[in-house]
Amino acid sequence: MEREHAAQAFDLDLQRLETLIIEMGGLVESQLAAAIEVLGQHDPEHAKRIIAADDRVDRLEFDIDELAVKILALRQPIAVDLRKILASIKIASNLERIGDYAKNLAKRSNILAESDNLESSVESIARMARLVQEMIKNALDAYLNRDSALAEEVRQSDAEVDQIHNSLFRELLTFMIEDPRKITPCTHLLFITKNIERMGDHVTGIAEQVTYVAKGKLPENDRPKEDKTSTLAISLAYDNRKDGGDP
Amino acid sequence: MEREHAAQAFDLDLQRLETLIIEMGGLVESQLAAAIEVLGQHDPEHAKRIIAADDRVDRLEFDIDELAVKILALRQPIAVDLRKILASIKIASNLERIGDYAKNLAKRSNILAESDNLESSVESIARMARLVQEMIKNALDAYLNRDSALAEEVRQSDAEVDQIHNSLFRELLTFMIEDPRKITPCTHLLFITKNIERMGDHVTGIAEQVTYVAKGKLPENDRPKEDKTSTLAISLAYDNRKDGGDP
Repeated sequence: MEREHAAQAFDLDLQRLETLIIEMGGLVESQLAAAIEVLGQHDPEHAKRIIAADDRVDRLEFDIDELAVKILALRQPIAVDLRKILASIKIASNLERIGDYAKNLAKRSNILAESDNLESSVESIARMARLVQEMIKNALDAYLNRDSALAEEVRQSDAEVDQIHNSLFRELLTFMIEDPRKITPCTHLLFITKNIERMGDHVTGIAEQVTYVAKGKLPENDRPKEDKTSTLAISLAYDNRKDGGDP
Repeated sequence: MEREHAAQAFDLDLQRLETLIIEMGGLVESQLAAAIEVLGQHDPEHAKRIIAADDRVDRLEFDIDELAVKILALRQPIAVDLRKILASIKIASNLERIGDYAKNLAKRSNILAESDNLESSVESIARMARLVQEMIKNALDAYLNRDSALAEEVRQSDAEVDQIHNSLFRELLTFMIEDPRKITPCTHLLFITKNIERMGDHVTGIAEQVTYVAKGKLPENDRPKEDKTSTLAISLAYDNRKDGGDP
Protein backbone atom coordinates (compact mmCIF):
# COMPACT_ATOMS: atom_id res chain seq x y z
CA MET A 1 0.00 0.00 0.00
CA GLU A 2 2.74 2.38 0.97
CA ARG A 3 4.72 1.41 -2.09
CA GLU A 4 1.68 2.11 -4.23
CA HIS A 5 1.37 5.54 -2.70
CA ALA A 6 5.01 6.26 -3.37
CA ALA A 7 4.61 5.16 -6.99
CA GLN A 8 1.61 7.44 -7.40
CA ALA A 9 3.44 10.37 -5.85
CA PHE A 10 6.36 9.70 -8.19
CA ASP A 11 4.07 9.72 -11.24
CA LEU A 12 2.53 12.96 -10.08
CA ASP A 13 5.97 14.52 -9.69
CA LEU A 14 6.96 13.45 -13.19
CA GLN A 15 3.70 14.80 -14.59
CA ARG A 16 4.24 18.09 -12.82
CA LEU A 17 7.73 18.28 -14.33
CA GLU A 18 6.32 17.66 -17.80
CA THR A 19 3.64 20.29 -17.27
CA LEU A 20 6.25 22.84 -16.22
CA ILE A 21 8.35 22.12 -19.34
CA ILE A 22 5.31 22.51 -21.58
CA GLU A 23 4.32 25.71 -19.80
CA MET A 24 7.84 27.09 -20.16
CA GLY A 25 8.03 26.02 -23.81
CA GLY A 26 4.68 27.61 -24.60
CA LEU A 27 5.76 30.82 -22.92
CA VAL A 28 9.05 30.94 -24.83
CA GLU A 29 7.25 30.23 -28.09
CA SER A 30 4.84 33.11 -27.50
CA GLN A 31 7.73 35.36 -26.41
CA LEU A 32 9.38 34.69 -29.74
CA ALA A 33 6.10 35.29 -31.62
CA ALA A 34 5.69 38.63 -29.82
CA ALA A 35 9.31 39.55 -30.53
CA ILE A 36 8.81 38.85 -34.25
CA GLU A 37 5.71 41.04 -34.22
CA VAL A 38 7.48 43.94 -32.57
CA LEU A 39 10.47 43.70 -34.91
CA GLY A 40 10.83 46.88 -36.89
CA GLN A 41 7.82 48.50 -35.27
CA HIS A 42 8.29 51.40 -32.95
CA ASP A 43 6.37 49.98 -30.06
CA PRO A 44 8.62 50.36 -27.01
CA GLU A 45 5.76 49.47 -24.63
CA HIS A 46 5.21 46.12 -26.30
CA ALA A 47 8.97 45.51 -26.37
CA LYS A 48 9.13 46.34 -22.68
CA ARG A 49 6.45 43.77 -21.88
CA ILE A 50 8.38 41.08 -23.76
CA ILE A 51 11.55 41.99 -21.87
CA ALA A 52 9.71 41.90 -18.54
CA ALA A 53 8.08 38.53 -19.26
CA ASP A 54 11.52 36.93 -19.47
CA ASP A 55 11.63 36.92 -15.67
CA ARG A 56 8.81 34.41 -15.71
CA VAL A 57 10.79 32.19 -18.10
CA ASP A 58 13.78 32.34 -15.76
CA ARG A 59 11.56 31.54 -12.81
CA LEU A 60 10.20 28.47 -14.60
CA GLU A 61 13.70 27.17 -15.24
CA PHE A 62 14.39 27.59 -11.55
CA ASP A 63 11.17 25.72 -10.61
CA ILE A 64 11.98 22.89 -13.02
CA ASP A 65 15.50 22.53 -11.61
CA GLU A 66 14.17 22.52 -8.07
CA LEU A 67 11.54 19.91 -8.79
CA ALA A 68 14.06 17.77 -10.70
CA VAL A 69 16.46 17.85 -7.77
CA LYS A 70 13.62 17.04 -5.37
CA ILE A 71 12.58 14.01 -7.44
CA LEU A 72 16.17 12.82 -7.78
CA ALA A 73 16.73 13.10 -4.04
CA LEU A 74 13.43 11.63 -2.84
CA ARG A 75 12.57 9.05 -5.49
CA GLN A 76 16.01 8.04 -6.73
CA PRO A 77 14.70 7.11 -10.15
CA ILE A 78 16.52 4.88 -12.63
CA ALA A 79 16.44 4.11 -16.37
CA VAL A 80 13.89 6.04 -18.42
CA ASP A 81 12.62 7.99 -15.39
CA LEU A 82 16.12 9.17 -14.59
CA ARG A 83 16.59 10.19 -18.21
CA LYS A 84 13.31 12.13 -18.19
CA ILE A 85 14.48 14.16 -15.24
CA LEU A 86 17.94 14.86 -16.61
CA ALA A 87 16.39 15.79 -19.95
CA SER A 88 14.06 18.23 -18.18
CA ILE A 89 17.03 20.07 -16.72
CA LYS A 90 18.72 20.33 -20.14
CA ILE A 91 15.53 21.29 -21.96
CA ALA A 92 14.75 23.99 -19.40
CA SER A 93 18.26 25.35 -19.88
CA ASN A 94 17.78 25.43 -23.67
CA LEU A 95 14.40 27.12 -23.32
CA GLU A 96 15.86 29.71 -20.96
CA ARG A 97 18.49 30.59 -23.56
CA ILE A 98 15.85 30.87 -26.32
CA GLY A 99 13.81 33.16 -24.07
CA ASP A 100 16.90 35.27 -23.49
CA TYR A 101 17.45 35.64 -27.22
CA ALA A 102 13.80 36.63 -27.70
CA LYS A 103 14.28 39.29 -25.04
CA ASN A 104 17.38 40.55 -26.80
CA LEU A 105 15.45 40.68 -30.06
CA ALA A 106 12.79 42.86 -28.40
CA LYS A 107 15.50 45.14 -26.99
CA ARG A 108 17.01 45.69 -30.41
CA SER A 109 13.64 46.29 -32.06
CA ASN A 110 13.55 49.83 -30.65
CA ILE A 111 16.72 50.74 -32.50
CA LEU A 112 15.51 49.19 -35.73
CA ALA A 113 12.30 51.15 -35.74
CA GLU A 114 14.34 54.23 -36.57
CA SER A 115 15.75 52.80 -39.77
CA ASP A 116 14.16 52.81 -43.20
CA ASN A 117 14.63 50.70 -46.27
CA LEU A 118 15.48 47.51 -44.48
CA GLU A 119 11.96 46.09 -44.63
CA SER A 120 12.92 43.22 -46.92
CA SER A 121 15.71 42.09 -44.60
CA VAL A 122 13.40 42.41 -41.61
CA GLU A 123 10.87 40.27 -43.50
CA SER A 124 13.51 37.57 -44.12
CA ILE A 125 14.45 37.69 -40.46
CA ALA A 126 10.80 37.30 -39.46
CA ARG A 127 10.53 34.30 -41.80
CA MET A 128 13.61 32.75 -40.22
CA ALA A 129 12.19 33.39 -36.74
CA ARG A 130 8.84 31.83 -37.71
CA LEU A 131 10.73 28.73 -38.81
CA VAL A 132 12.38 28.55 -35.40
CA GLN A 133 9.00 29.11 -33.76
CA GLU A 134 7.63 26.13 -35.71
CA MET A 135 10.68 24.11 -34.61
CA ILE A 136 9.95 24.96 -30.96
CA LYS A 137 6.33 23.88 -31.38
CA ASN A 138 7.37 20.59 -32.97
CA ALA A 139 10.10 19.97 -30.40
CA LEU A 140 7.54 20.37 -27.61
CA ASP A 141 5.11 18.04 -29.41
CA ALA A 142 7.93 15.53 -29.82
CA TYR A 143 8.72 15.88 -26.12
CA LEU A 144 5.11 15.33 -25.04
CA ASN A 145 4.66 12.30 -27.29
CA ARG A 146 8.22 10.89 -26.95
CA ASP A 147 8.27 11.10 -30.73
CA SER A 148 11.89 10.66 -31.79
CA ALA A 149 11.01 10.73 -35.49
CA LEU A 150 9.55 14.22 -35.10
CA ALA A 151 12.57 15.17 -32.98
CA GLU A 152 14.87 14.11 -35.81
CA GLU A 153 12.79 16.20 -38.23
CA VAL A 154 13.29 19.22 -35.97
CA ARG A 155 17.05 18.62 -35.95
CA GLN A 156 17.18 18.41 -39.71
CA SER A 157 15.12 21.55 -40.25
CA ASP A 158 17.77 23.61 -38.49
CA ALA A 159 19.78 23.50 -41.73
CA GLU A 160 17.20 25.75 -43.38
CA VAL A 161 17.56 28.27 -40.56
CA ASP A 162 21.33 28.24 -41.05
CA GLN A 163 20.93 28.81 -44.76
CA ILE A 164 18.70 31.85 -44.32
CA HIS A 165 21.23 33.10 -41.79
CA ASN A 166 24.07 32.76 -44.31
CA SER A 167 22.28 34.70 -47.02
CA LEU A 168 21.05 37.38 -44.62
CA PHE A 169 24.58 37.82 -43.27
CA ARG A 170 25.87 38.40 -46.78
CA GLU A 171 22.97 40.73 -47.67
CA LEU A 172 23.35 42.86 -44.56
CA LEU A 173 27.11 43.24 -44.99
CA THR A 174 26.50 44.34 -48.57
CA PHE A 175 23.93 46.94 -47.47
CA MET A 176 26.37 48.34 -44.94
CA ILE A 177 29.07 48.68 -47.55
CA GLU A 178 26.72 50.34 -50.02
CA ASP A 179 25.32 52.82 -47.53
CA PRO A 180 27.19 53.63 -44.33
CA ARG A 181 24.04 55.16 -42.84
CA LYS A 182 22.77 51.60 -42.57
CA ILE A 183 25.71 50.40 -40.50
CA THR A 184 24.07 50.79 -37.09
CA PRO A 185 20.71 49.20 -37.95
CA CYS A 186 22.35 46.47 -40.05
CA THR A 187 24.71 45.60 -37.20
CA HIS A 188 21.71 45.10 -34.93
CA LEU A 189 20.03 43.04 -37.65
CA LEU A 190 23.19 40.92 -37.92
CA PHE A 191 23.04 40.21 -34.20
CA ILE A 192 19.32 39.52 -34.35
CA THR A 193 19.93 37.08 -37.20
CA LYS A 194 22.74 35.43 -35.28
CA ASN A 195 20.52 35.18 -32.19
CA ILE A 196 17.78 33.48 -34.16
CA GLU A 197 20.34 31.07 -35.58
CA ARG A 198 21.44 30.31 -32.01
CA MET A 199 17.80 29.76 -31.02
CA GLY A 200 17.66 27.12 -33.75
CA ASP A 201 20.71 25.41 -32.20
CA HIS A 202 19.00 25.36 -28.82
CA VAL A 203 15.81 23.87 -30.28
CA THR A 204 18.05 21.22 -31.83
CA GLY A 205 19.41 20.61 -28.34
CA ILE A 206 15.86 20.06 -27.07
CA ALA A 207 15.13 17.65 -29.92
CA GLU A 208 18.27 15.69 -29.02
CA GLN A 209 17.06 15.35 -25.43
CA VAL A 210 13.76 13.92 -26.71
CA THR A 211 15.75 11.25 -28.55
CA TYR A 212 17.82 10.67 -25.42
CA VAL A 213 14.69 10.02 -23.33
CA ALA A 214 13.08 7.82 -25.98
CA LYS A 215 16.11 5.78 -27.02
CA GLY A 216 18.49 6.05 -24.09
CA LYS A 217 21.16 7.78 -26.13
CA LEU A 218 21.75 10.98 -28.04
CA PRO A 219 21.41 10.95 -31.84
CA GLU A 220 24.52 9.51 -33.40
CA ASN A 221 24.41 11.07 -36.83
CA ASP A 222 25.80 14.56 -37.01
CA ARG A 223 23.20 17.19 -37.40
CA PRO A 224 23.53 19.32 -40.49
CA LYS A 225 25.49 22.47 -39.68
CA GLU A 226 25.17 25.03 -42.38
CA ASP A 227 26.26 28.18 -40.59
CA LYS A 228 29.12 29.55 -42.68
CA THR A 229 29.09 33.14 -41.53
CA SER A 230 32.22 32.87 -39.37
CA THR A 231 34.35 32.72 -42.45
CA LEU A 232 32.37 35.02 -44.68
CA ALA A 233 34.05 38.02 -46.22
CA ILE A 234 32.35 40.56 -48.43
CA SER A 235 34.72 42.64 -50.51
CA LEU A 236 34.17 46.17 -51.53
CA ALA A 237 33.91 47.02 -55.20
CA TYR A 238 36.80 49.44 -54.72
CA ASP A 239 38.75 47.13 -52.48
CA ASN A 240 41.72 45.21 -53.81
CA ARG A 241 41.44 42.26 -51.47
CA LYS A 242 40.01 39.07 -52.85
CA ASP A 243 36.60 37.94 -51.72
CA GLY A 244 37.24 35.31 -49.08
CA GLY A 245 33.98 33.58 -50.00
CA ASP A 246 33.09 30.57 -47.92
CA PRO A 247 36.37 28.72 -47.45
CA MET B 1 32.16 -4.24 4.78
CA GLU B 2 30.05 -4.16 1.67
CA ARG B 3 28.69 -0.78 2.63
CA GLU B 4 32.23 0.47 3.11
CA HIS B 5 33.14 -0.73 -0.36
CA ALA B 6 30.12 1.03 -1.83
CA ALA B 7 31.08 4.25 -0.05
CA GLN B 8 34.62 3.99 -1.40
CA ALA B 9 33.38 3.35 -4.92
CA PHE B 10 31.09 6.34 -4.61
CA ASP B 11 33.95 8.59 -3.52
CA LEU B 12 36.04 7.36 -6.42
CA ASP B 13 33.21 8.14 -8.84
CA LEU B 14 32.86 11.66 -7.45
CA GLN B 15 36.62 12.17 -7.65
CA ARG B 16 36.64 10.98 -11.24
CA LEU B 17 33.84 13.45 -12.04
CA GLU B 18 35.82 16.27 -10.48
CA THR B 19 38.94 15.27 -12.41
CA LEU B 20 37.00 15.28 -15.67
CA ILE B 21 35.63 18.78 -14.96
CA ILE B 22 39.11 20.07 -14.17
CA GLU B 23 40.51 18.42 -17.29
CA MET B 24 37.74 19.92 -19.43
CA GLY B 25 38.17 23.33 -17.81
CA GLY B 26 41.93 23.28 -18.35
CA LEU B 27 41.45 22.32 -21.96
CA VAL B 28 38.91 25.09 -22.58
CA GLU B 29 41.17 27.60 -20.87
CA SER B 30 44.08 26.64 -23.10
CA GLN B 31 41.80 26.66 -26.16
CA LEU B 32 40.92 30.25 -25.36
CA ALA B 33 44.59 31.14 -24.77
CA ALA B 34 45.48 29.65 -28.16
CA ALA B 35 42.59 31.47 -29.83
CA ILE B 36 43.77 34.79 -28.39
CA GLU B 37 47.25 34.09 -29.70
CA VAL B 38 46.04 33.31 -33.20
CA LEU B 39 43.80 36.37 -33.30
CA GLY B 40 44.88 38.68 -36.05
CA GLN B 41 47.74 36.43 -37.14
CA HIS B 42 47.56 34.65 -40.41
CA ASP B 43 48.20 31.18 -39.07
CA PRO B 44 45.49 28.98 -40.53
CA GLU B 45 47.25 25.81 -39.38
CA HIS B 46 47.21 26.90 -35.77
CA ALA B 47 43.58 27.99 -36.13
CA LYS B 48 42.75 24.59 -37.62
CA ARG B 49 44.29 22.81 -34.63
CA ILE B 50 42.19 24.90 -32.23
CA ILE B 51 39.07 24.11 -34.21
CA ALA B 52 39.90 20.38 -34.26
CA ALA B 53 40.60 20.26 -30.51
CA ASP B 54 37.02 21.30 -29.82
CA ASP B 55 35.98 17.71 -30.50
CA ARG B 56 37.87 16.68 -27.39
CA VAL B 57 35.99 19.30 -25.36
CA ASP B 58 32.67 17.97 -26.67
CA ARG B 59 33.77 14.43 -25.86
CA LEU B 60 34.59 15.43 -22.29
CA GLU B 61 31.13 16.92 -21.81
CA PHE B 62 29.69 13.65 -23.05
CA ASP B 63 31.88 11.64 -20.63
CA ILE B 64 30.92 13.89 -17.71
CA ASP B 65 27.22 13.53 -18.50
CA GLU B 66 27.56 9.77 -18.79
CA LEU B 67 29.41 9.43 -15.51
CA ALA B 68 26.94 11.76 -13.77
CA VAL B 69 24.01 9.67 -14.96
CA LYS B 70 25.79 6.48 -13.89
CA ILE B 71 26.41 7.86 -10.39
CA LEU B 72 22.82 9.10 -10.09
CA ALA B 73 21.46 5.73 -11.16
CA LEU B 74 23.78 3.49 -9.14
CA ARG B 75 24.50 5.50 -6.01
CA GLN B 76 21.33 7.56 -5.69
CA PRO B 77 23.14 10.36 -3.86
CA ILE B 78 21.43 13.01 -1.77
CA ALA B 79 22.20 16.48 -0.36
CA VAL B 80 25.63 17.88 -1.19
CA ASP B 81 26.61 14.83 -3.26
CA LEU B 82 23.53 15.21 -5.42
CA ARG B 83 24.28 18.89 -5.85
CA LYS B 84 27.87 18.11 -6.87
CA ILE B 85 26.64 15.84 -9.64
CA LEU B 86 23.99 18.22 -10.93
CA ALA B 87 26.53 21.05 -10.82
CA SER B 88 28.95 18.93 -12.89
CA ILE B 89 26.35 18.58 -15.64
CA LYS B 90 25.73 22.34 -15.70
CA ILE B 91 29.40 23.26 -15.49
CA ALA B 92 30.27 20.87 -18.33
CA SER B 93 27.55 22.47 -20.41
CA ASN B 94 28.95 25.95 -19.72
CA LEU B 95 32.48 24.81 -20.54
CA GLU B 96 31.29 23.25 -23.77
CA ARG B 97 29.77 26.58 -24.84
CA ILE B 98 32.98 28.46 -23.94
CA GLY B 99 34.96 25.96 -26.01
CA ASP B 100 32.57 26.51 -28.89
CA TYR B 101 33.09 30.26 -28.72
CA ALA B 102 36.88 29.77 -28.66
CA LYS B 103 36.54 27.63 -31.78
CA ASN B 104 34.47 30.32 -33.44
CA LEU B 105 37.12 32.89 -32.51
CA ALA B 106 39.77 30.76 -34.22
CA LYS B 107 37.58 30.43 -37.31
CA ARG B 108 37.19 34.17 -37.62
CA SER B 109 40.89 34.83 -37.05
CA ASN B 110 41.64 33.80 -40.63
CA ILE B 111 39.43 36.57 -41.97
CA LEU B 112 40.91 39.14 -39.63
CA ALA B 113 44.44 38.43 -40.68
CA GLU B 114 43.66 40.11 -43.97
CA SER B 115 42.76 43.43 -42.40
CA ASP B 116 45.10 46.24 -41.44
CA ASN B 117 44.83 49.11 -39.00
CA LEU B 118 42.68 47.32 -36.49
CA GLU B 119 45.56 46.33 -34.22
CA SER B 120 44.40 48.48 -31.34
CA SER B 121 40.92 46.95 -31.37
CA VAL B 122 42.42 43.48 -31.61
CA GLU B 123 44.60 44.35 -28.62
CA SER B 124 41.53 45.43 -26.60
CA ILE B 125 39.78 42.22 -27.59
CA ALA B 126 42.79 40.18 -26.49
CA ARG B 127 42.76 42.02 -23.17
CA MET B 128 39.06 41.24 -22.73
CA ALA B 129 39.70 37.59 -23.58
CA ARG B 130 42.58 37.38 -21.10
CA LEU B 131 40.21 38.67 -18.42
CA VAL B 132 37.80 35.88 -19.27
CA GLN B 133 40.67 33.40 -19.24
CA GLU B 134 41.55 34.57 -15.72
CA MET B 135 37.88 34.19 -14.75
CA ILE B 136 37.89 30.58 -16.01
CA LYS B 137 41.02 29.83 -14.00
CA ASN B 138 39.51 31.33 -10.85
CA ALA B 139 36.16 29.60 -11.38
CA LEU B 140 37.96 26.24 -11.63
CA ASP B 141 39.96 27.02 -8.48
CA ALA B 142 36.73 27.97 -6.72
CA TYR B 143 35.18 24.71 -7.92
CA LEU B 144 38.10 22.60 -6.67
CA ASN B 145 38.19 24.30 -3.27
CA ARG B 146 34.40 24.85 -2.88
CA ASP B 147 35.36 28.50 -2.42
CA SER B 148 32.15 30.50 -2.73
CA ALA B 149 33.91 33.78 -1.92
CA LEU B 150 36.18 33.34 -4.95
CA ALA B 151 33.13 32.29 -6.99
CA GLU B 152 31.42 35.55 -6.07
CA GLU B 153 34.55 37.45 -7.10
CA VAL B 154 34.38 35.75 -10.51
CA ARG B 155 30.73 36.75 -10.89
CA GLN B 156 31.50 40.35 -10.04
CA SER B 157 34.43 40.59 -12.42
CA ASP B 158 32.14 39.88 -15.36
CA ALA B 159 31.05 43.53 -15.19
CA GLU B 160 34.50 44.59 -16.40
CA VAL B 161 34.21 42.27 -19.39
CA ASP B 162 30.83 43.81 -20.22
CA GLN B 163 32.30 47.30 -20.00
CA ILE B 164 35.13 46.53 -22.42
CA HIS B 165 32.51 44.97 -24.69
CA ASN B 166 30.43 48.16 -24.64
CA SER B 167 33.31 50.42 -25.54
CA LEU B 168 34.61 48.04 -28.21
CA PHE B 169 31.16 47.81 -29.75
CA ARG B 170 31.01 51.59 -30.01
CA GLU B 171 34.57 51.83 -31.34
CA LEU B 172 34.06 49.20 -34.02
CA LEU B 173 30.81 50.74 -35.24
CA THR B 174 32.58 54.08 -35.51
CA PHE B 175 35.42 52.54 -37.53
CA MET B 176 32.94 50.98 -39.92
CA ILE B 177 31.18 54.28 -40.45
CA GLU B 178 34.45 56.14 -41.00
CA ASP B 179 35.85 53.60 -43.44
CA PRO B 180 33.55 51.18 -45.25
CA ARG B 181 36.55 49.00 -46.18
CA LYS B 182 36.63 48.02 -42.53
CA ILE B 183 33.05 46.76 -42.50
CA THR B 184 33.82 43.07 -43.05
CA PRO B 185 36.68 42.77 -40.56
CA CYS B 186 34.90 44.97 -38.00
CA THR B 187 31.77 42.85 -38.26
CA HIS B 188 33.82 39.77 -37.43
CA LEU B 189 35.47 41.67 -34.58
CA LEU B 190 32.00 42.63 -33.30
CA PHE B 191 31.01 38.98 -33.24
CA ILE B 192 34.28 37.97 -31.61
CA THR B 193 33.73 40.62 -28.95
CA LYS B 194 30.17 39.45 -28.42
CA ASN B 195 31.37 35.84 -28.17
CA ILE B 196 33.91 36.75 -25.51
CA GLU B 197 31.21 38.63 -23.62
CA ARG B 198 29.08 35.45 -23.79
CA MET B 199 32.03 33.39 -22.54
CA GLY B 200 32.09 35.68 -19.50
CA ASP B 201 28.39 34.92 -18.91
CA HIS B 202 29.12 31.19 -19.03
CA VAL B 203 32.00 31.52 -16.55
CA THR B 204 29.55 33.37 -14.33
CA GLY B 205 27.24 30.38 -14.69
CA ILE B 206 30.05 28.09 -13.51
CA ALA B 207 30.73 30.34 -10.52
CA GLU B 208 27.04 30.20 -9.60
CA GLN B 209 27.16 26.41 -9.61
CA VAL B 210 30.11 26.52 -7.21
CA THR B 211 27.97 28.58 -4.83
CA TYR B 212 25.09 26.14 -5.35
CA VAL B 213 27.28 23.19 -4.31
CA ALA B 214 28.79 25.03 -1.34
CA LYS B 215 25.65 26.69 0.02
CA GLY B 216 22.80 24.61 -1.35
CA LYS B 217 21.34 27.49 -3.30
CA LEU B 218 22.20 29.80 -6.16
CA PRO B 219 23.46 33.32 -5.37
CA GLU B 220 20.53 35.56 -4.52
CA ASN B 221 21.92 38.95 -5.38
CA ASP B 222 21.71 39.89 -9.02
CA ARG B 223 24.98 39.76 -10.77
CA PRO B 224 26.08 43.02 -12.38
CA LYS B 225 24.97 43.13 -15.99
CA GLU B 226 26.69 45.87 -17.87
CA ASP B 227 26.14 44.81 -21.46
CA LYS B 228 24.41 47.76 -23.10
CA THR B 229 25.20 47.02 -26.72
CA SER B 230 21.68 45.83 -27.61
CA THR B 231 20.43 49.37 -27.48
CA LEU B 232 23.48 51.14 -28.78
CA ALA B 233 23.18 53.40 -31.79
CA ILE B 234 26.04 55.27 -33.39
CA SER B 235 24.99 58.16 -35.57
CA LEU B 236 26.79 59.32 -38.62
CA ALA B 237 28.18 62.80 -38.73
CA TYR B 238 26.12 63.42 -41.83
CA ASP B 239 23.06 61.63 -40.53
CA ASN B 240 20.11 63.64 -39.22
CA ARG B 241 18.94 61.05 -36.72
CA LYS B 242 19.71 61.66 -33.10
CA ASP B 243 22.26 59.49 -31.35
CA GLY B 244 20.24 56.86 -29.51
CA GLY B 245 22.97 56.58 -26.89
CA ASP B 246 22.42 54.02 -24.17
CA PRO B 247 18.76 54.37 -23.22
